[in-house]
Amino acid sequence: MMKINQPYIPMRTIMTPGPVEVDPRVLRAMGTPILGQFDPAFTNIMNEVMEMLKQVFKTKNRWAFPVDGTSRAGIEAVLASLIEKGDKVLIPIYGRFGHLLTEISERYGAEIHTLECPWGEVFEPKMIIEEIKKIRPKIVAIVHGETSTGCMQPLEEIGKACRELDTLLVVDAVASLGGTNVDVDGWFLDAVIGGTQKCLSAPSGMAPITYNERVEKVILSRKKVERGIATDKDLHTFAHRSIISNYFDLSQLQDYWSERRLNHHTEATSMIYALHEGLRLILEEGLEERFTRHKLHEQALANGIEAMGLKLFGNRQSKIPTVTCVTVPDGVDADIVRQQLLQEFGIEIAGSFGPLQGKIWRIGTMGHSCRKENVLFVLAGLEAVLIRQGVNVNRGEAVQAALDVYSKYAMTV
Amino acid sequence: MMKINQPYIPMRTIMTPGPVEVDPRVLRAMGTPILGQFDPAFTNIMNEVMEMLKQVFKTKNRWAFPVDGTSRAGIEAVLASLIEKGDKVLIPIYGRFGHLLTEISERYGAEIHTLECPWGEVFEPKMIIEEIKKIRPKIVAIVHGETSTGCMQPLEEIGKACRELDTLLVVDAVASLGGTNVDVDGWFLDAVIGGTQKCLSAPSGMAPITYNERVEKVILSRKKVERGIATDKDLHTFAHRSIISNYFDLSQLQDYWSERRLNHHTEATSMIYALHEGLRLILEEGLEERFTRHKLHEQALANGIEAMGLKLFGNRQSKIPTVTCVTVPDGVDADIVRQQLLQEFGIEIAGSFGPLQGKIWRIGTMGHSCRKENVLFVLAGLEAVLIRQGVNVNRGEAVQAALDVYSKYAMTV
Repeated sequence: MMKINQPYIPMRTIMTPGPVEVDPRVLRAMGTPILGQFDPAFTNIMNEVMEMLKQVFKTKNRWAFPVDGTSRAGIEAVLASLIEKGDKVLIPIYGRFGHLLTEISERYGAEIHTLECPWGEVFEPKMIIEEIKKIRPKIVAIVHGETSTGCMQPLEEIGKACRELDTLLVVDAVASLGGTNVDVDGWFLDAVIGGTQKCLSAPSGMAPITYNERVEKVILSRKKVERGIATDKDLHTFAHRSIISNYFDLSQLQDYWSERRLNHHTEATSMIYALHEGLRLILEEGLEERFTRHKLHEQALANGIEAMGLKLFGNRQSKIPTVTCVTVPDGVDADIVRQQLLQEFGIEIAGSFGPLQGKIWRIGTMGHSCRKENVLFVLAGLEAVLIRQGVNVNRGEAVQAALDVYSKYAMTV
Repeated sequence: MMKINQPYIPMRTIMTPGPVEVDPRVLRAMGTPILGQFDPAFTNIMNEVMEMLKQVFKTKNRWAFPVDGTSRAGIEAVLASLIEKGDKVLIPIYGRFGHLLTEISERYGAEIHTLECPWGEVFEPKMIIEEIKKIRPKIVAIVHGETSTGCMQPLEEIGKACRELDTLLVVDAVASLGGTNVDVDGWFLDAVIGGTQKCLSAPSGMAPITYNERVEKVILSRKKVERGIATDKDLHTFAHRSIISNYFDLSQLQDYWSERRLNHHTEATSMIYALHEGLRLILEEGLEERFTRHKLHEQALANGIEAMGLKLFGNRQSKIPTVTCVTVPDGVDADIVRQQLLQEFGIEIAGSFGPLQGKIWRIGTMGHSCRKENVLFVLAGLEAVLIRQGVNVNRGEAVQAALDVYSKYAMTV
């Protein structure tokens, strides 16, 4: 029998766009002993999670609960529960995670329509609305904050148009929820998916979702699968009209989260503790205060990067406050810089995907990672490593520029 | 903005068949700060989890890793990755979780064939083998340990027959893995799913799975879905030949767990810490020693229940050591007894499902919950509550009978 030692966990400053550092209070909450899933003390915690999620999503929706899986589990739960074979789904793509929405929708048999714009830009809402009028899709699925490019798509106009045109708007808000405004009701979003491992300061492994009555109506109109046995033995009809996945069947998940508590999965106790504490931290700080804090640290970081002499990637008009993309200077190996940052400073930043691989670095300012010490440290560390790589940077300017931003505000973190 | 207080988490003695109490070392491991998913320190932990899982599954399979979701996520990942529309799947059902295998297989379009035997019994392997020969299914899916009835199906003969008849054997070992022998290679099991929240002494939220080359071959023979976009635009062909789920696509999950580390989801960091520590605890104790311990406490519990004058439910020949089912005496309200146990003693035991609802109690002896103090406490508490309910029990006999079992062994826990 092989023996394995306790693992060595080095201390890291995690400045990627997720997973980011977890608030110590959340870490402590996960050390709390287990409760049974139907213990009244536990169902009370589940109910409080729902209530707090509604606040963070800014919604009066009845349904707001986590799917037990990583963020894409939440995305798949929504799309799998809505899409029937042949349904038209329009997906405006402006980065990697738009492609993920496409892949999932296609797997569930959607008739896919895409719009694409260059990575680093977002869409003019008008362009999307025109396409909705032309195609008349059942669903528009779009990413709110694209971590792959650091851009954020304005949604309000699109939401209004979808409501008027009777289209369902499904939004991946994994990178934005808890760090910048996601106004579910105000923007007319029908289903929205968040992530715990980004601006909620909790570990990866849960996907908070919310959806409104328009979505629920579609889900409940689909052929019901009885627990343990399907009602329809005709395979073709079955696959066509029923929700295929059991794990992601929102009609069953909402029964589990309702007062009826119909047994589905066994809720992931410790992750619920983590989410509960992460949400408590957000409501204690205040949503608007939290958004301001994210914006402040983003400004400090972005100004620092530019003061160093580096270029930000992407249209700054469309920038998301939680991710800052930096163009890798000519002749510099992006991965070697990241390796040195990790090895010598214990700082983790990210590369990117597809067309941007090796071309940009992505630095997150999310949740608990979004603090003065981290921003100043990543600027100082990056400068040191770039100088070693022979890059001509403006020595000492970056930290100074960030401090200038901080000195304008009374915030201490 | 609503404020929510830190939740009140009462101390419980959890003697259900899961989720059970989590080992304090596992709780502490979850308090460890986060690492990035591609941090070498983290991928090293992922590799160690794979190595340890292979020991616990008793397999030389290349693939053994957790699916990020609760146990049924692991079951769905295996079935969704194997089943193509119209595939014959044979499911011998002897309790509630056989019905779950049926539901999931049917959702993915399988041609379902079932065998049923009374709840409380298991199948003569011969009966299943005869059916395999008759139906020639692509897959036999079966539960190893049925928590709903407390029974355990012997698998070795069935495994051998499946191998000879070129059928894939998929086994739900959620209730048995880590508590009693699950000999994946020795019994010729092709794909096996475990659960963290039972005998692995970790919280719910991960589903360890393993599968062999026979399974991998089928998975890789299916139409490949490119990351972000499917290769085949013909919807009907697409749905027929590709794995439908993205989240449960084992061909992508194994790429993520391979040296290539192809990005899929963001691995659930804290749950991986928990699983790593839970597996370390098992290997430190020793697999066979652990099985003996579970058997010992089962015996103490079962003898105690009988000494009290209650009847065990189910054929004792087929009993699983990790769950003990007790027939509710005539005229007793099963739920009131459970409520009183919870309220007055902080002890949680379970009811059952379907035909057994209100008819039996289910008491787990799993993982960290499987300790002398818990077994003696649940016997004492149950006796006290039953006396209050007017049941004529043999006062004091239960604890004595359990102590008699313990006194034969030198074990201190």
